[in-house]
Amino acid sequence: MSAITIKQLAHELKLSVGTVSKALKDSHEISIETKKRVGDLAKALNFIPNPYASSLRRRKSKTIAVVLPDIADSFFSAAIKGIEIVAQSRGYHVLVYLTYELFCKECSILSDFKSGRVDGVLISVSRETTESHHINELQTNGIPVVFFDRVLPEINTAKVVTNDFEAACQATAHLLEKGCKRVAYLSFSRTLSITMDRLEGYKQALSDAGMSQMIDVVFCSNDEHENDGLIRDVLSRKNRPDGILASAESLTIVAYHVCHEMELKIPDDIKIVSFSNLATALILNPSLTTISQPAFAMGEAAALLLFKSLEKNNFVLEEEKIVIPSVLMERQSSAYSSPAARKFNA
Amino acid sequence: MSAITIKQLAHELKLSVGTVSKALKDSHEISIETKKRVGDLAKALNFIPNPYASSLRRRKSKTIAVVLPDIADSFFSAAIKGIEIVAQSRGYHVLVYLTYELFCKECSILSDFKSGRVDGVLISVSRETTESHHINELQTNGIPVVFFDRVLPEINTAKVVTNDFEAACQATAHLLEKGCKRVAYLSFSRTLSITMDRLEGYKQALSDAGMSQMIDVVFCSNDEHENDGLIRDVLSRKNRPDGILASAESLTIVAYHVCHEMELKIPDDIKIVSFSNLATALILNPSLTTISQPAFAMGEAAALLLFKSLEKNNFVLEEEKIVIPSVLMERQSSAYSSPAARKFNA
Repeated sequence: MSAITIKQLAHELKLSVGTVSKALKDSHEISIETKKRVGDLAKALNFIPNPYASSLRRRKSKTIAVVLPDIADSFFSAAIKGIEIVAQSRGYHVLVYLTYELFCKECSILSDFKSGRVDGVLISVSRETTESHHINELQTNGIPVVFFDRVLPEINTAKVVTNDFEAACQATAHLLEKGCKRVAYLSFSRTLSITMDRLEGYKQALSDAGMSQMIDVVFCSNDEHENDGLIRDVLSRKNRPDGILASAESLTIVAYHVCHEMELKIPDDIKIVSFSNLATALILNPSLTTISQPAFAMGEAAALLLFKSLEKNNFVLEEEKIVIPSVLMERQSSAYSSPAARKFNA
Repeated sequence: MSAITIKQLAHELKLSVGTVSKALKDSHEISIETKKRVGDLAKALNFIPNPYASSLRRRKSKTIAVVLPDIADSFFSAAIKGIEIVAQSRGYHVLVYLTYELFCKECSILSDFKSGRVDGVLISVSRETTESHHINELQTNGIPVVFFDRVLPEINTAKVVTNDFEAACQATAHLLEKGCKRVAYLSFSRTLSITMDRLEGYKQALSDAGMSQMIDVVFCSNDEHENDGLIRDVLSRKNRPDGILASAESLTIVAYHVCHEMELKIPDDIKIVSFSNLATALILNPSLTTISQPAFAMGEAAALLLFKSLEKNNFVLEEEKIVIPSVLMERQSSAYSSPAARKFNA
């Protein structure tokens, strides 16, 4: 059974399409009698207005896009839930697009939005993204863009982030306090602002401890196998690190595997802290100390900012930054290992 | 800057809207000269055709919907990736909707699709869903629906599932073989076909072992706190189980927490096997034996079936079931505990 159109209703009722349309919208131009005739037939034939027809009239698609690098990550799946709840409450629909960390994919996805498929865009950019023309083009076309987590600092719009610099600084200081002499930072991008902010926080903590010479950064890739090799190399070095600050949970999972295989005991031989929202952090072997990001709240805040722009006509999002702090959750993977504990564990 | 419309192009060129529209679509009715004039101005003004306008003409939205209970679950996040890759390759867009395991939410989401917002629907139903009128209504409106994982068996359409009965039977037999005398089954729904199939598989294995009297089912809810209490009660019983088959990874995470808190050693005091695709299964304390579902392949297969229907006009999806088998990944949580091992561990 194909859907009934306004044209068919008009034909049946011997009225013009315009009259039927106005009657359905309860216009004051139409008599009560006609409205009743139209309403009754629409009901009898199960007429449902086409959403894209009203999109065209109102120039609103009632749809927003969320553009993400990946979905199999505790941060992004929680952030989507925050976005989705806000959108559902406003009667909006959420298109989800994955870039798989590829800049070219991100460009081709965004390019399609210029045509009016979505009213606004929430984005966390890929690890490769350094240019911003694809975002600027959307803004030029009147489509508001809000960044969350992974932002492009140079773009003039609203951004929701966490306190990456402070959190990394605090986590590094925590590792030093627990007795680490050489902390390595596992970075998942060479350019992304959040990994660079975390790197600066890490450097700051080393500098505060008078250990500026001890900077040890491992630039990881998006390939699990390659990262396994990189981390294995670092942990095989003569002057291997006894502490790791990981900027992504995927790197931490690899680091745990490598430590298990190399029979390095966590936290006695090496301590680990990770940016992560893993539901299993507490039951890992050993439980993982995390910098837990407010993922749900960040998604929610970003969506609220976008709707602020969508719901007020001609409201342009200005440079605005909301910072929602992360929390260091201390667990076994960064516990202090006293000589006594070492003896006991041996 | 607001987008240029066909109307504006027509006005500038002193042509009718119909002529401009036909020229843009390279119609044979329009002269080469006019096409060039229209094309040049469209290019100069950066004209982009509105996708919803062409949706209306073609009665295609080039959009599919994925309706899921949750996204923070390794099965669903992998399945979405399988769906998304197929959709991207065909130039389709993916709307993601979360039901949060609520039947009423599922109904209200699906009800909105009847209007033509999407060309087809992929769904994994909520734990509460027992009725099917909301799905039937979509089919009556000519919108194809494909089920994946959580299906409604009575609906006549294509379904992609895993071998739930066999996998649960195999996992239960595995626990008995490793020495369990009393295996409990943690179910996450009282009605859902996949949990019931898993329950039947569990019962079959007990029956095969001559232990039909030992059926011990714990019906869990969607509330983590409530499940914590339920599992704690079961493990506090005098005749507590020494083996657990969990039908969902969320239940397994709770069970691990409870065992840690009650100081029950896994696998010595209690063995655990879970339906799960957790990336951290191998680094849990202890590593988790899983029934690993082919989540990505299931998402991909479901999307391919849907596109089979979308790409052939009037092609109606018939009752068809694709079964992609799961794999038992044996790890520490279900390892055999010999008396010697017990002594050594004590």
